[in-house]
Amino acid sequence: MELLNQLGKNASIAKYELQKLTTDKKNHALCKAASALVKESSSLLQENAKDIAKGEEKGMHSGLLDRLRLTEERIKGMAEGLLQVAELPDPIGQVIETIERPNGLKIEKRRVPIGVIGMIYESRPNVTADAFALCFKSGNAVILKGGSDAVCSNIAITRVIRQALKDEGITEDAIQLIEVADRAVTREFMRMKEYVDLLIPRGGAGLIKSVVENSIIPVIETGTGNCHIYVDEFADLEKAIQIIINAKTQRIGVCNACESLVIHKAVKDALLPRLAEALKAYHVEIRGDETVRQVIDCIPATKEDYGTEYLDYIISMKTVASIEEAVAHINKYSTKHSESIITEKRENAEKFLNEVDAACVYANASTRFTDGFEFGFGAEIGISTQKLHARGPMGLRELTSYKYVIRGNGQIRQ
Amino acid sequence: MELLNQLGKNASIAKYELQKLTTDKKNHALCKAASALVKESSSLLQENAKDIAKGEEKGMHSGLLDRLRLTEERIKGMAEGLLQVAELPDPIGQVIETIERPNGLKIEKRRVPIGVIGMIYESRPNVTADAFALCFKSGNAVILKGGSDAVCSNIAITRVIRQALKDEGITEDAIQLIEVADRAVTREFMRMKEYVDLLIPRGGAGLIKSVVENSIIPVIETGTGNCHIYVDEFADLEKAIQIIINAKTQRIGVCNACESLVIHKAVKDALLPRLAEALKAYHVEIRGDETVRQVIDCIPATKEDYGTEYLDYIISMKTVASIEEAVAHINKYSTKHSESIITEKRENAEKFLNEVDAACVYANASTRFTDGFEFGFGAEIGISTQKLHARGPMGLRELTSYKYVIRGNGQIRQ
Repeated sequence: MELLNQLGKNASIAKYELQKLTTDKKNHALCKAASALVKESSSLLQENAKDIAKGEEKGMHSGLLDRLRLTEERIKGMAEGLLQVAELPDPIGQVIETIERPNGLKIEKRRVPIGVIGMIYESRPNVTADAFALCFKSGNAVILKGGSDAVCSNIAITRVIRQALKDEGITEDAIQLIEVADRAVTREFMRMKEYVDLLIPRGGAGLIKSVVENSIIPVIETGTGNCHIYVDEFADLEKAIQIIINAKTQRIGVCNACESLVIHKAVKDALLPRLAEALKAYHVEIRGDETVRQVIDCIPATKEDYGTEYLDYIISMKTVASIEEAVAHINKYSTKHSESIITEKRENAEKFLNEVDAACVYANASTRFTDGFEFGFGAEIGISTQKLHARGPMGLRELTSYKYVIRGNGQIRQ
Repeated sequence: MELLNQLGKNASIAKYELQKLTTDKKNHALCKAASALVKESSSLLQENAKDIAKGEEKGMHSGLLDRLRLTEERIKGMAEGLLQVAELPDPIGQVIETIERPNGLKIEKRRVPIGVIGMIYESRPNVTADAFALCFKSGNAVILKGGSDAVCSNIAITRVIRQALKDEGITEDAIQLIEVADRAVTREFMRMKEYVDLLIPRGGAGLIKSVVENSIIPVIETGTGNCHIYVDEFADLEKAIQIIINAKTQRIGVCNACESLVIHKAVKDALLPRLAEALKAYHVEIRGDETVRQVIDCIPATKEDYGTEYLDYIISMKTVASIEEAVAHINKYSTKHSESIITEKRENAEKFLNEVDAACVYANASTRFTDGFEFGFGAEIGISTQKLHARGPMGLRELTSYKYVIRGNGQIRQ
């Protein structure tokens, strides 16, 4: 594909320029891009209105339309995001480690950009600005493939950012957008190994699965979270209820929301009636195993329930006879995102934290904290659920690689 | 495939046991496995003889037969390798970073095993023991798919190690071998994402390409090295010649050997006749561009030459008019493995080290130092030429992931 090859070539040239930019220069450009987005609000809204109109025409779901919609407020939010990234420390050039060898070689492990990052995401125009900011600050060129329903909005946002870069004397190809909405193009994009160093899919489970299966470029999987809370035999039930309500209901459509409870039998009678009452107030449907249903009235849970990320006002409940059984159940059904134990017994907390295999394991806290901002990273490009390269919230540092810089004075190998 | 699924299930159970093993227990088992290999030498040699006989029968190349062959000496070498890994520090459990948040959450970034590692490699039985040792010490279960020509040897080595583990009361499934020599099985292995967290191919460019293109499991690419040495205008030519001879001839079949020279025009007349003489003594064939051929007698170099990893007594030579041209040429043709500049001018060295995009960039040293032992890692499982997760020599630490362990006292998200 001619078009993709051209984008790839442009990015490969841009990346060498971007890796040399000073921190000041990058921050200045981010601030300029932020102002430009606000200044160009009316044209952004105009373009976004086209996407919205098309979406309404084809009967798009109201939730999706909401994610697609830009407002003055939301454009300010995007600009604010760029300013926040400008304020974060620059990871590039950091010396991670130095090694001095007996033969006199001085080895420096230095943080460098990854190079060219590809992003494939759904129809959420704010991701366009977000992804650019994080990739740019970490010295990477980015090629974006946003959802086709947001194409007018994405073209407009990209145009504003490219102009701001140009005004600063920086290569516009720091951000490029694949404007064609064609599955064959997306598929080809996932095979551009010659030009793209990393592909990050951001969106629902289907999108991520498709990228993982079709890409020959290294991928970081993000986002699927079938998160559990285990209420231990030694739990403070008051804490448990507050944490469960928070993790289930504070925001239902996010990957760090709680989808399933595991409950030690010893606390079922004390916990379940109060918990059911509290969940009812938030209109949460309960799907419980037989033991749960002996205590409270609810829908029977199937095995499929245990493996489902509802992203909805639904929660499954499973009872266990021991912490070992709880750990085994969670390790079986979890998507390795975020898992929490509620217990006052230190040994049990440590056992859970050690043995549950997930990016983030909690004792006595809500799973909703798995987030780049909440971790103090200042921003995030996604939450990795794989074990390679980066795990959990990915900030600027997770968008970097390293190189070994070795200084000698004529050393040869014996 | 029933067989593969069973191996996958076994490994998924084993990994939870392995992540809990103490350092002492792991080291003890490695020492026991080392003794067992030596003790079982005669049966290993017997099984290896079957592979060799089959290889000779089918007319295998002498180089390949040599790699396939075990001797008493080589078995001792394998055992020695296990003992060396036992002596290395255990990376598991290390606290990489701690973060305390204003809301009181204590976040600990802790090093953990990756889980299950798959290795696909050629017919080199020593890799079987090596790969086991590194994966085991870093708390991972390993599933091995060795070259089919080494199948009897690999079965024998695996059997000895599994018995040693069993004698120590450790799960034998820490090491499993895919014994079937069938391309369909290998292909299916690369799709076992449910069970395998990381796939490491080790071997020639063809093997690696096939794994990268067919695997849906995350892969770390290792090994292809089209390494350059750039002789700068300000080079010490004596150093240059010694380094080039070392990097080209000390061992020709390895990925960190030098395959191509880039020479500043200002030094061609002083360098080339002496260098050609020195290379001649090692029977190295020179393929040069036109400018080179005006100074010395050699074969004309084509573009294909610049992109070729010879792994042979051949070197290509290209002249440039500036360091910028040298950097651009190298960034175009390099496989991002190891690149070196010979110069006495500090600014030029730094420019090269900054701007050449490779895992290891050298000033005034041989590319042959790109190696886990030479870097002080104590061992290596391969040299990564990709930018994700690990770059350059991969030791124990590069076989780990991390998890965030978060301790709270009832925190919920606002």
